[in-house]
Amino acid sequence: MIRLDLSGISGFLEKLDLGAAEDAARRIPAHEMSGWAVLPAAYSVATGAKLRGAGSKIAESSDALVVLGAGGSSLGARALIEAIPGRGGVREVYFAGDNLSGVHMARLTETLRDRDFSVIAASKSGTTTEPAVALRVFLKLLRERYGDLRDRLYIVAGEHESPMRSFAETCGCALFGIPESVGGRYSVLTAAGLLTAAARGIDIDEIVAGARSEAESGAGEAIRYAAARQGLYAAGYRTEIFASFEPDAKALGEWWRQLFGESEGKGGGGIFPATVGFTGDLHSMGQYIQEGRRDIFETILEFGARGGDAVIPANAEFDDGFAFLDGRGFNDVNDVAARAVRAAHIDGGVPVLGLEAGSFDERGLGALMYFFETACAVSAFLAGVDPFDQPGVEKYKGIMRGELRGTD
Amino acid sequence: MIRLDLSGISGFLEKLDLGAAEDAARRIPAHEMSGWAVLPAAYSVATGAKLRGAGSKIAESSDALVVLGAGGSSLGARALIEAIPGRGGVREVYFAGDNLSGVHMARLTETLRDRDFSVIAASKSGTTTEPAVALRVFLKLLRERYGDLRDRLYIVAGEHESPMRSFAETCGCALFGIPESVGGRYSVLTAAGLLTAAARGIDIDEIVAGARSEAESGAGEAIRYAAARQGLYAAGYRTEIFASFEPDAKALGEWWRQLFGESEGKGGGGIFPATVGFTGDLHSMGQYIQEGRRDIFETILEFGARGGDAVIPANAEFDDGFAFLDGRGFNDVNDVAARAVRAAHIDGGVPVLGLEAGSFDERGLGALMYFFETACAVSAFLAGVDPFDQPGVEKYKGIMRGELRGTD
Repeated sequence: MIRLDLSGISGFLEKLDLGAAEDAARRIPAHEMSGWAVLPAAYSVATGAKLRGAGSKIAESSDALVVLGAGGSSLGARALIEAIPGRGGVREVYFAGDNLSGVHMARLTETLRDRDFSVIAASKSGTTTEPAVALRVFLKLLRERYGDLRDRLYIVAGEHESPMRSFAETCGCALFGIPESVGGRYSVLTAAGLLTAAARGIDIDEIVAGARSEAESGAGEAIRYAAARQGLYAAGYRTEIFASFEPDAKALGEWWRQLFGESEGKGGGGIFPATVGFTGDLHSMGQYIQEGRRDIFETILEFGARGGDAVIPANAEFDDGFAFLDGRGFNDVNDVAARAVRAAHIDGGVPVLGLEAGSFDERGLGALMYFFETACAVSAFLAGVDPFDQPGVEKYKGIMRGELRGTD
Repeated sequence: MIRLDLSGISGFLEKLDLGAAEDAARRIPAHEMSGWAVLPAAYSVATGAKLRGAGSKIAESSDALVVLGAGGSSLGARALIEAIPGRGGVREVYFAGDNLSGVHMARLTETLRDRDFSVIAASKSGTTTEPAVALRVFLKLLRERYGDLRDRLYIVAGEHESPMRSFAETCGCALFGIPESVGGRYSVLTAAGLLTAAARGIDIDEIVAGARSEAESGAGEAIRYAAARQGLYAAGYRTEIFASFEPDAKALGEWWRQLFGESEGKGGGGIFPATVGFTGDLHSMGQYIQEGRRDIFETILEFGARGGDAVIPANAEFDDGFAFLDGRGFNDVNDVAARAVRAAHIDGGVPVLGLEAGSFDERGLGALMYFFETACAVSAFLAGVDPFDQPGVEKYKGIMRGELRGTD
């Protein structure tokens, strides 16, 4: 379902080492943290029903949903709800638990003053500072506002024994698990991503169906993407810019950035991941991409089928110089812009990897995310690092905990 | 008002060439595109009154404001309204005219179906495709919904003769100018940034007052920031990561990215600008920053005074392992995290420039933006490029126009 177009790197890279990438792909099933790879196959009717049930309850009872989670417990959910409108879901979603700003927390609690709300608390480890302290604020608020926590608090936690899990049982709140074999940044197809999507009225079965069909179609394109990225890196292209022409795919770019940055940025190496949203960011980063340092490459994402479009009407008020666009579709014009940008960037010395996803909807997003997860694992193995650990993050978490205890 | 802390680069860079940076700063007044530098001094009571009057009218008549603008006509306004809450302003602000997606446009017009709205159309050149085609959609919508455009459409345009300006006169809409000597990415202190802020109920006089006091305090810190950045670049640090510990300063980071990326990314060189929001992005880009390629440096922004805070309550429900945080303020904990992160990154081999802004409010933001504008101009002159042109963007605009005409 995902198509990779390598013609935009042919002038920059002689050939790809597909053999090595195929070997790397074979290492995925053997790794103890490759649980993400079998999530689509393991997703059952009961799993979907439980998520949808909780999602509906949130949507029915609440004006707003507050999602507490950091990193993988936030970015996947954000990517899904920003890209897909959903139907009949909760109207407002706020993310917290991914920062320590008192300014932000004070503004959020003020906003919630006149709204009925529910809370999803997601933390695989249960030991991350940010979601833990945010949960304290919301436990207090929920008790004050509603008394009982049931039907207002939904807990997403790792499957190991933990205080969070025990608490879920005590308070009678719905509990959803993240398998131990699924790392945070690979957890979008667990409740960490899907529960928020369900609350928004997004068809989560279709997301998983998209991922499943991508899994079944084999890893061929993901292997080629990984080989191309690492080939370009070896040839001196150090920064990858992820670009999409859909503004509502911006959070998807941030999810992509965590996935690749956290998997590959190790041992003094790794492709530096950056994201832009076109055509908007052509008016900010476009200058740099066109004429800045020539050690960057671009991955441009486009979608085939799109659910919405609008027509460019004539300007009945004054001659704006764009009469040649009268009556054309925005998406059509957007596609022309994409071709022009691609050509201009290649011409300017930037290798461009083209990715075409089938559709900008549940199914297309599910397929795309599974594709990226596979490609990322292959790519990190190719680079000689473990795709699934994050020693630098653990180091920060440890330092911060120590500092906070020290300044107690 | 802005303080630069260079202690975090002392282990990475011997000394700064301040003399060259001071020479570069002297070139600013002579450049024909340095009109931004005198905006704070030129801002008059009448200018403020006109902006505030229009802003109040928007807030009184509308549930939502739609801002049409690309690049500099959008990013400055976004940065201001995301960082500063305002009082009594228009409740919802939507940005458009910075993309060509039919999906996005269809969703936006659907959202506006049950809202009273006003429109700001901002384009200095008047010849940029994205805001031009978006304006067509909204001209039609406004005519259908309200008949008269007056009191619903506000035009921000360059001061040269243009179809947009003539049209503003014909339709009787309020017209605001962007001086020809102020480039798009330096235009936040014109109506391009301030009108949206005023509509949101933000005290724009205070924004300008902050910029004015920064201008009057001299360019010393900006010169040091520019010298440090270019010194690090010359020493092999190719990517600058702009980090703030306030989630609501995220759009400020995107404004910063345009300012520096578009000013410096020329002639095959330039520091690659990237932005993160901490502590959240420690759980995505933190791994890379800690252990990835050692050709990055960081600029960490902190704010002294902050208008809001929240207390971390005890966890009355279960033992979450964070009892040592009971009763502490979020901002205090955030500051501890900032110190820990800074130390960890320097220890990991990343030079860190520390920036302290006086306050996270109108005055602080105004000062900070003026500081960055000055530093950016100095930095680009130091790098031997023109801080105020964008030949690569003009190239893209030309190619796209040509392609669109060709596929007519």
